Amino acid sequence: MLYFEDLALHQPQRSQPYTVSKEDVIAFATQWDPQPYHTDEEAAKQWPLGLTASGLHTVAIAVKLINALAREPAAVVAGLGWDEVRMLAPVRPGDTLYAVTWLDSKRESNSKPGMGILSTTVELYNQRDEVVLRYRIASLAMKRPAA
Amino acid sequence: MLYFEDLALHQPQRSQPYTVSKEDVIAFATQWDPQPYHTDEEAAKQWPLGLTASGLHTVAIAVKLINALAREPAAVVAGLGWDEVRMLAPVRPGDTLYAVTWLDSKRESNSKPGMGILSTTVELYNQRDEVVLRYRIASLAMKRPAA
Repeated sequence: MLYFEDLALHQPQRSQPYTVSKEDVIAFATQWDPQPYHTDEEAAKQWPLGLTASGLHTVAIAVKLINALAREPAAVVAGLGWDEVRMLAPVRPGDTLYAVTWLDSKRESNSKPGMGILSTTVELYNQRDEVVLRYRIASLAMKRPAA
Repeated sequence: MLYFEDLALHQPQRSQPYTVSKEDVIAFATQWDPQPYHTDEEAAKQWPLGLTASGLHTVAIAVKLINALAREPAAVVAGLGWDEVRMLAPVRPGDTLYAVTWLDSKRESNSKPGMGILSTTVELYNQRDEVVLRYRIASLAMKRPAA
């Protein structure tokens, strides 16, 4: 188990690739974000970007890919939230995405003894190595218990 | 069509309710966020909060409920991202959620003539009227074309 003190900054890990099909784009958006430019190939032709994946769908793909990384478990006890979630480029059917993540900063908690606050960056790239999504995760991790 | 100038600040709209079943919690997390405290009722008993919905799942529910509001279409041309996404309380199987949203600020774009930047707050509440999720959406809206 990796405690707060054990976690190293700035060590990027890259996920496996994930190809987004047209059926996936439409099915996800139909359930969660039914905008015509996410759910209807014909209607999407009237929109500047055509048929694109819901931004929510791209976040879901990033979460899935990061979950699947082989990593020693960290003593994270709670996710506090996400900051500066930016959909930076459209994701289209047929795109193959991968995620990159690293711990970008950590500090001791002011209010919770024995805990630290982690800031982790997640980026999602497409097959042209263009970043399509970036966000930061704030989470709470245990410090190493006193011996 | 509501243009940038037409959009009124601080007019909360409340969504229909949405009840989260145990099957939904497990199915969503199995696909997108497979942590044991989201996917496995027995294993979740070992965790401080028990079986809870993935934070990503709560965001997806908020997006779905906001999409379903009956509203005059606004001239929003792009979502820019989400800020300060905070999962404030656990969502558990059987909870009935509703979303509230309002435009909290707007300003003219410095870089894009004819456009404005909107900041919209979304909150998700449970059946005890506790806020479980809050975030802000930044988006780009067209100004009214010159006559």
